[in-house]
Amino acid sequence: MTYCLAIRTETGIVFASDSRTNAGVDHISTYSKMNIFKLPGRLFVILSAGNLATTQAVINRVQRDLEEPESALSLATVKHIHDAAKYIGKINVQAQTEHANPLERHGISAECSFILGGQIEGGTHDIQLIYPQGNSISASSSTPYLQIGEIKYGKPILDRVLTAQTTLEDAARCALVSLDSTMRSNISVGPPVELSIYRKDALEIAQHLSLENDSPEYVAIKDAWGCGLQQAFDQLPRFVWEG
Amino acid sequence: MTYCLAIRTETGIVFASDSRTNAGVDHISTYSKMNIFKLPGRLFVILSAGNLATTQAVINRVQRDLEEPESALSLATVKHIHDAAKYIGKINVQAQTEHANPLERHGISAECSFILGGQIEGGTHDIQLIYPQGNSISASSSTPYLQIGEIKYGKPILDRVLTAQTTLEDAARCALVSLDSTMRSNISVGPPVELSIYRKDALEIAQHLSLENDSPEYVAIKDAWGCGLQQAFDQLPRFVWEG
Repeated sequence: MTYCLAIRTETGIVFASDSRTNAGVDHISTYSKMNIFKLPGRLFVILSAGNLATTQAVINRVQRDLEEPESALSLATVKHIHDAAKYIGKINVQAQTEHANPLERHGISAECSFILGGQIEGGTHDIQLIYPQGNSISASSSTPYLQIGEIKYGKPILDRVLTAQTTLEDAARCALVSLDSTMRSNISVGPPVELSIYRKDALEIAQHLSLENDSPEYVAIKDAWGCGLQQAFDQLPRFVWEG
Repeated sequence: MTYCLAIRTETGIVFASDSRTNAGVDHISTYSKMNIFKLPGRLFVILSAGNLATTQAVINRVQRDLEEPESALSLATVKHIHDAAKYIGKINVQAQTEHANPLERHGISAECSFILGGQIEGGTHDIQLIYPQGNSISASSSTPYLQIGEIKYGKPILDRVLTAQTTLEDAARCALVSLDSTMRSNISVGPPVELSIYRKDALEIAQHLSLENDSPEYVAIKDAWGCGLQQAFDQLPRFVWEG
């Protein structure tokens, strides 16, 4: 499993992802799920969840379309973020179809989801969730985040804290807390945690962190959150019969 | 969907459940999922999740086995909590089987899960999770809680706070926070929230609350938790580049 999320605020985008992949509990590996494409006049980040062979096939195809000048369509030529999502969606469906029959015979799903975010010069910054079926949705101003993979454990804190006006640093802290909550409750999501901050109109990543469980800045946030939660819990009102 | 949980500490058991049932988003109703059986020398609480017709059939059968003196087995005659779980598991499988074929033809699952908890005089207090297949597991001292239904949203706070030494009132507050987090993130879980506290060896429920969203004591806990979380979030350490 996997847990990735992107948060779009008025001032930019935060991307966060775990790095655990597994094929059964006895086959666990570490792979980055955050792919950054810095191109002339545009920046894209792609987060991936699902069958690792499919995600690698998709990212490989995206990379080759950029390298081969005869490609009709690539991240370098799409005109809008939504077109980029459509392009990734199409590649995703093709990659799944290629090995679908033998995979299905073994009861294995080839499905993948992606979050694509970024900005094309002259356009607005945006994030899109691309489903295994190739279609996609954007975030909204009232729900400024998108998630893929193991999304439930880390959702409550996003629902409580995030708005379109949240600062990028607060959004980044919220993403780290959301990932930490997920990793504590589900062993299929694991470190290192990758975090990227994109400030709108910059067309490049402002900050990129890869945090191990024992990275001092990640430990500081986890410890402070644990203490703060315990404090919040200890301060809950007593029941009437407790006097 | 549904969210129910039970927490077994050294001093007793906390039971909590939501009350929303739905067959599609346009058919939402309110049903209690907490059934309390106070019998001579024993007390049982049954929490239910899954197909409403199956859970009603199971509870109805449990009730009739108690009323009909010719019943070979009932909650009044089982000797251990584990035997009670086995008895509920068997009824559960029978109830699912009865309508399985027509339900499957319509793509509807008859499956149900239960949490059974309580105490039989002379025995220890315990909780058991009964799977749709009829088998069951108990909580452990290191994982002192059991959940059924929509379990993921509310799990992180349980993992952080609960131990076998937690007081029953703290466990009850933790259960309310866990339910509140779930209801905020998932509309298939809804009020009223029922909460029962069982103190070991009492053989009766010490406290039973049914809390609507606007019940003053529930509002007080939700507000205090929201403020405490925001405070915890605001106190998280800054990133190095924030100076």
